[in-house]
Amino acid sequence: MSYARQNPVTHLGTVSVGADVLTEVIDALSRCAQACAADTDADLSEPDVTEMVQCIRLCLDCVDVCTATGGVMSRPADKDASVARTLLEACVAICKSCGDECERHAHMHEHCRVCAEACRRCERACRDLLDVLGQQAGVAPR
Amino acid sequence: MSYARQNPVTHLGTVSVGADVLTEVIDALSRCAQACAADTDADLSEPDVTEMVQCIRLCLDCVDVCTATGGVMSRPADKDASVARTLLEACVAICKSCGDECERHAHMHEHCRVCAEACRRCERACRDLLDVLGQQAGVAPR
Amino acid sequence: MSYARQNPVTHLGTVSVGADVLTEVIDALSRCAQACAADTDADLSEPDVTEMVQCIRLCLDCVDVCTATGGVMSRPADKDASVARTLLEACVAICKSCGDECERHAHMHEHCRVCAEACRRCERACRDLLDVLGQQAGVAPR
Amino acid sequence: MSYARQNPVTHLGTVSVGADVLTEVIDALSRCAQACAADTDADLSEPDVTEMVQCIRLCLDCVDVCTATGGVMSRPADKDASVARTLLEACVAICKSCGDECERHAHMHEHCRVCAEACRRCERACRDLLDVLGQQAGVAPR
Repeated sequence: MSYARQNPVTHLGTVSVGADVLTEVIDALSRCAQACAADTDADLSEPDVTEMVQCIRLCLDCVDVCTATGGVMSRPADKDASVARTLLEACVAICKSCGDECERHAHMHEHCRVCAEACRRCERACRDLLDVLGQQAGVAPR
Repeated sequence: MSYARQNPVTHLGTVSVGADVLTEVIDALSRCAQACAADTDADLSEPDVTEMVQCIRLCLDCVDVCTATGGVMSRPADKDASVARTLLEACVAICKSCGDECERHAHMHEHCRVCAEACRRCERACRDLLDVLGQQAGVAPR
Repeated sequence: MSYARQNPVTHLGTVSVGADVLTEVIDALSRCAQACAADTDADLSEPDVTEMVQCIRLCLDCVDVCTATGGVMSRPADKDASVARTLLEACVAICKSCGDECERHAHMHEHCRVCAEACRRCERACRDLLDVLGQQAGVAPR
Repeated sequence: MSYARQNPVTHLGTVSVGADVLTEVIDALSRCAQACAADTDADLSEPDVTEMVQCIRLCLDCVDVCTATGGVMSRPADKDASVARTLLEACVAICKSCGDECERHAHMHEHCRVCAEACRRCERACRDLLDVLGQQAGVAPR
C-alpha cells in the first residue's frame, strides 16, 4: 500500500479531490518516473542503441516532469490550481509522447512495453485529475 | 560564464531559437531553483515562520518545476514543442505566484527580495521563449 | 506490483544483486521520498509549525537524496560501485536522522508516524544493498 | 552574480564555512548538473552514439547527484554534518568518474570537453568543502 493512501488528503488547494484520485496520480507518477529511468538504462544496453535515441530522449524528459509533478502533488495543501493544472498538462503531453514511442519498440523490447504501460497509466491518472480540477472550476470535462 | 553559453544550441526541436534566449532560460531556471531553495531555508529560520508558510509552499513547488524545466531545456535536440510549451507555462504560473508571495515579504526579509527577483527573471525568460515557440507555430505573440 | 520487479535486473555494475534486494531499494526510496514530501506539507499545516521546523528541514533533504538515489539505482547497468556505495551511505545517514526526528512527533502527528516508518524501511533497504556490495568487494558485512 | 552570494550564509549546520566556499559549491554543482544534461543530449546526437554510452550513463548519474547535493547545500541551516559529508563524497565520486570519461572524448567532442571541465570544478569545490568540514570535526585534511 502506498503511504500516500494513509493520508486522508481530500483537497488540492480549494478543490475537493477524492483521496483515491490523488493517490492514483501520485503512485502513477512515481511508477512512471521509475519505469522511464529503467527504460533509459535498458535502451542504452541494447545493441541497436542508435534506434533507441528518441526513446531515451523522451524517457529523460518524462522522468523530470513526472518527478516534479509527483513532488508538487504530494504537497496538496493550499495548492494553486493553475500551477497544478499546467503541470498536469505538461505531464499528459510528455506521457503521451513517451508512451507512443515506447509502444513502437514494445514488440522488440520488454522494457519498452513495461514503460509504455506506465506512461499510459500516468497519462490517464493525470487526465482524471485534470477533469476533477476542470469541473470544479466550472469548465466542461473533456 | 555559463557552460550552456558555450554550446552552439540554436534549435529546440524543429524551432530555431537564439542561443542567447535558450541560455537565459536555462540560467534563469537554475538561479530561480537555487534562490527558492535558499529562501525556503531562510524562511524556516525566521521567528515568524507561521507567516512564511505560504512562501515556503510556493518556493518548494518552484524548485521542483524549475529544476525539471531546466533539465528538459538543457536537452534541446529533437524536443517535442508541445511538451516544452506546457512545461514553460507551468513554470510561468509558479514563478508568478511565488514571485508575488516573495514580494509581499521583500520589505521584511532580504532573502525574499532576492527570491522574488529570481522568480521575476525566470518568469520573463520563460515567457520570452514561449513567444519564440508561439511565433514559429503561427500563433500571434502575447 | 512495481515495474522494477518486472525487469530481470540482477547486476549493479559488476556486482550480482538479487532482483528482490534491488527492487526493494528502489521501491523504498520512492516511498520514502513521497512520504517525506507529504510530511513536509502536513507539517506546514500544523498550528505548531514552529515545533516542526527541524522535521521539515530533514524531510526536504530526505526527498532530495532519496530521489537522486532512486534515479541512480533504477539505472543499474555498468554502475560504478563506489558511486553507488557513497550514495547509499548518504541515504542511510539522512533516513536515520529524518526517521529519528519524525519518530519524536509520531505520537502527536500520524503523518510523522507514517514518514518515520518509510524512513526506517528505506534505511534498512539501503543497508541491505550496502551489505551485498560490501561482501562482494571483500569487505566484511556490518 | 549568484543569488547565493547575496545571502550571508556562513554556517553549514554548526560548522563555520566561508560564504565563498559554500557559494562556489552551490554554483559548481548547478553548472555541473547543467553541463552533464547538455552533454547527454549532445552525446545522443553523435553518429557514434554507441561509443558514448558510458559517457551518457555517468552524466545521468552526475545530474541526479549534483542536483540533490545542490538542493541540500542551498539549505545550510541546522544541517546534519554527517549527511552533508556523505553526500559530498558521493558527489566527488561521480564527478571524478564522469570527468574522467568525458575527458576521454574531449579531443573529439567539444561538449565533452566542456562537461569534463564542469565535473573537475565541481569535484574540486566539493573536496574543498569536505576539507572545511573535516578540519572542524578534528579530522586531518586530505
